[in-house]
Order: sequence, then C-alpha cells, then structure tokens
Amino acid sequence: MDSNLPITPCPQVCDGDLPLDCLPCGPRNKGHCFGPNICCGEELGCYLGTSETLRCQEENFLPTPCESGRKACGEDGASCAAPGICCSSEGCVFDSSCNQEMLFA
Amino acid sequence: MDSNLPITPCPQVCDGDLPLDCLPCGPRNKGHCFGPNICCGEELGCYLGTSETLRCQEENFLPTPCESGRKACGEDGASCAAPGICCSSEGCVFDSSCNQEMLFA
Repeated sequence: MDSNLPITPCPQVCDGDLPLDCLPCGPRNKGHCFGPNICCGEELGCYLGTSETLRCQEENFLPTPCESGRKACGEDGASCAAPGICCSSEGCVFDSSCNQEMLFA
Repeated sequence: MDSNLPITPCPQVCDGDLPLDCLPCGPRNKGHCFGPNICCGEELGCYLGTSETLRCQEENFLPTPCESGRKACGEDGASCAAPGICCSSEGCVFDSSCNQEMLFA
C-alpha cells in the first residue's frame, strides 16, 4: 500500500462498508487491538492488560469505531482474535470455533 | 526461602490444606499459570496462548492440582489474576472487583 495515500475516516453514512481496522500492536506489530486493553494476533495469541496493550489505549481517542476480527463467536459482539481464542473488548475465552486458520484479515 | 528445601508434593489426604501454587511463568517468572494456556501476574497482566504461556503446558502433567489466585471472582471457580482481570482456565475478563491491590500471594 502506498504510504502516501491519505487515510480517510469513514463518514457516518457509510454503514455497511468495512469499518477501519483497529490499531496494530504487539511484537512486530503483528497484532490488532480489541478495545483499549487487549492485543491479539493470529501468530501471537492475546495480551490482556500487559505492556503490549499500552498502544491500544489510543483506541479511546479514535474518531470513528474500528473493528478487529472477522468471524463472530461467543456473545456480545465478540469475534475470533487468535487461533482458538474469542475476544470482545471485555475479555477473551478459549473457543474451539475459532480454531480454523485464516480467520483474520 | 531456602532453595535447598525439598518441594514435597501434597499427598491426596491433605484436602483443606492450601494447594500448591501453579507454575511460575512470564517475564522474569513474575507470573503464575492459570491452566495450560494462561499466564498472569500482578505486575504483568495476562497472556493467553502466547509464547509466555508455553511453560504452562506442563500443568497438564502436575501430579496434584495447583491453584493460582486467592480472591474468587466471576463464575466457574475463576479468581483475580491481575489488577482488574478475572481468570479461570477458560479465559479472562476485565472485572472491577479485582481492582484492589495485594489480591495475590
């Protein structure tokens, strides 16, 4: 991707479009934030309230909502966050429905 | 503690005694395992399915059950695992009842 391309926030009328990915985080920036205190990546697993999640605090200041994970799991809008792990911004649980590879964009 | 002291496994008749602490894990071994895939520490936060939890796989081979955390929280035998985080071996959720300091031995 051309790093000179401007990042245009999604306007309020774009319901149905793909939302912005959440902030990258974790070792080698291979993860994405799931809320302000969780960082997960397909090759990483998940970090809750660790030094790897400090970057995710910035999510509190994003102008538009972001979305991490593509496949829904569990309850309350959670999604598969890493192999075998289902997360919302409230926490993460092991979930075999997230075991399949390539669940994550 | 005298590092020459032998570690004696708890015999089966010791119901009611304090169970063994679970295995140490994580950066500087400052955490304890919560089941085979979770490592949490008061100064660390929690790791789920990350490289920091690999040591915890050994819990599957412990001769007697171990116990991490002292204060019960949430459901299903979960306990406070790090400031503001409640874990069982199934996963971790943010829980304000775990916010108080010095919850952990």
